[in-house]
Amino acid sequence: METPRLVVDMDVVDRNIARFQALAEKVGVKTRPHIKTHKLPFLAHRQIAAGAIGITCQKIGEAEVMADAGLDDILITYNILGQEKLDRLAALARRIRLSVTCDNAPVAQALSERFSGEDKPLRVLIECDTGAGRCGVQSPVEAHDLARTIAHLPGLTLEGLMTYPPMAASADAEIWLAQARRLLTESGLSCPVVSNGGTPNLGDLGLFKTATEHRAGTYIYNDRSLVTGGHCTVADCAAVVHATVISRPTDRRAIIDAGSKALSSDLLGLKGFGLIREAPDADIVGLSEEHGTIDLTNTSWRPRVGDIITIIPNHVCVVSNLFDAITLRHPDGRLEEVRVSARGKVA
Amino acid sequence: METPRLVVDMDVVDRNIARFQALAEKVGVKTRPHIKTHKLPFLAHRQIAAGAIGITCQKIGEAEVMADAGLDDILITYNILGQEKLDRLAALARRIRLSVTCDNAPVAQALSERFSGEDKPLRVLIECDTGAGRCGVQSPVEAHDLARTIAHLPGLTLEGLMTYPPMAASADAEIWLAQARRLLTESGLSCPVVSNGGTPNLGDLGLFKTATEHRAGTYIYNDRSLVTGGHCTVADCAAVVHATVISRPTDRRAIIDAGSKALSSDLLGLKGFGLIREAPDADIVGLSEEHGTIDLTNTSWRPRVGDIITIIPNHVCVVSNLFDAITLRHPDGRLEEVRVSARGKVA
Repeated sequence: METPRLVVDMDVVDRNIARFQALAEKVGVKTRPHIKTHKLPFLAHRQIAAGAIGITCQKIGEAEVMADAGLDDILITYNILGQEKLDRLAALARRIRLSVTCDNAPVAQALSERFSGEDKPLRVLIECDTGAGRCGVQSPVEAHDLARTIAHLPGLTLEGLMTYPPMAASADAEIWLAQARRLLTESGLSCPVVSNGGTPNLGDLGLFKTATEHRAGTYIYNDRSLVTGGHCTVADCAAVVHATVISRPTDRRAIIDAGSKALSSDLLGLKGFGLIREAPDADIVGLSEEHGTIDLTNTSWRPRVGDIITIIPNHVCVVSNLFDAITLRHPDGRLEEVRVSARGKVA
Repeated sequence: METPRLVVDMDVVDRNIARFQALAEKVGVKTRPHIKTHKLPFLAHRQIAAGAIGITCQKIGEAEVMADAGLDDILITYNILGQEKLDRLAALARRIRLSVTCDNAPVAQALSERFSGEDKPLRVLIECDTGAGRCGVQSPVEAHDLARTIAHLPGLTLEGLMTYPPMAASADAEIWLAQARRLLTESGLSCPVVSNGGTPNLGDLGLFKTATEHRAGTYIYNDRSLVTGGHCTVADCAAVVHATVISRPTDRRAIIDAGSKALSSDLLGLKGFGLIREAPDADIVGLSEEHGTIDLTNTSWRPRVGDIITIIPNHVCVVSNLFDAITLRHPDGRLEEVRVSARGKVA
């Protein structure tokens, strides 16, 4: 097996899919998995087969790949802007059940202009900043005002509310969403969907009484950030980077053939660039593009040149994006190489 | 023009190529550009046309793409290990002038075993750790000992010494290399090549009297890390990420459609994830995969939703790796999309 390589254990994947679905069913919320983590149509189909009502994509390019593979209910959680993108969006809306999000009037206006000539209106959810500090209207009142704008624009249908909540403070996010929905319904605006998201808050699913669906992505593979956060165990991590020790320049330094092109530079607040399963007390202290530098000061482990080691990445979604192809390990031990067909879709 | 997109100004590229070549010729050192920055065969050919004696690659996959495109003198600055990789290396050595580096006896032994049955021996340079702290033998004496091992192994030819020197302390690195070469020549070991590298030390080229060739990569595009280090100006940066402002949630926050999948999370010791040419005082304070968060607190600039902005990335080599295709801007203003054919070659 040539390294570096991303190997995905299908036993663990299936267990993770089943666990999310069961958690959601227990609290009566539907699932709409985010495909950004795996970027693989066959895994999206597996999530649907387990009970998901549809999938989530972040970019049109991802949704196009998924639609080509037969996925027919997609939410793109993004402000879509620009003539070429709007044309691609319209083409996509003709062949699947499509929804998008929006957090400002200029985007709503442009969506409306593009879709007013189409046979079907485009479903739009208001993106709400419930504390994560990225996109989103800033208050329930702003959500209400934008909802009213969208409800009156030709070519659009108001579908409801969407948020990516902050890691902590789930209860506050729930109050935010409940207030916004109340304002909408009091004004006679439809709000059939309240879409919540995230893997780290799966333990808090029951707190989100307002949510009708949950978008989680990372749960299917899990990663070191989730292990460190106490959201899963090392055994729940399905995707592992295999790397070879190519140099042992000193007693306390080992160099592997996986650098930032395989592991990414994402730290997510952690120390070091991944967890070495063979030696959790060894530190991946530096990455250049094709080399990883391991400091052996805090471990008695002394790998040899040629040893293959396995690393749980800090942030698995970005790692999926770096590999043109990955290796599946099936329950019977069989290895299969698959192309990551929705990777690299930045637009 | 759809965003995010990496746009490369060919005027600046040609100027940068000419400048490196002129600097090297002035001090009498040959050039062997590292293609990791552009990953494009046509640019490698342009570097050769300007006077380079060959190119440098980091992985066999990159060298295969370059050889397919007619590049016929390649140094792979990497310890190659593993049966599949050795077979690929042997196939490559049959069709081009190929050299590799090595810093330990197990790798030398494996290279020898694979190449002793081949018609031509493989050229091997000893990788020397002159202070950068990654791969490399740790002293001139170690370099000498490994050189003697390689010189006596069947299937291999000792080609000389190679280093990636530390950013500062060029003079120390030169002393290191000069000592090692002296030890080799005193033992009657051949050392026709001393290969030095790096863009940040191009101003110090004259200090490296021992070097016969210089491998620089980033100079062809340049980036924010080199601007901040005082090695070039913003006008010397050929590769710029174009992004669209998709949200203005608050007066002091702007969100763009370029995240870590377009700009990468590489900081290289800098604050923020890139330099906005339209507002150098605005801070790109956070990236998620598809969103960049700009803090406008320290700037009077207030971009609108739909504005396209241009960003000089912190580290351009990793950005090249993230785009399946990039856009060239030719001197006559014509835009051309080209596939980055050597991107994603992790093995």
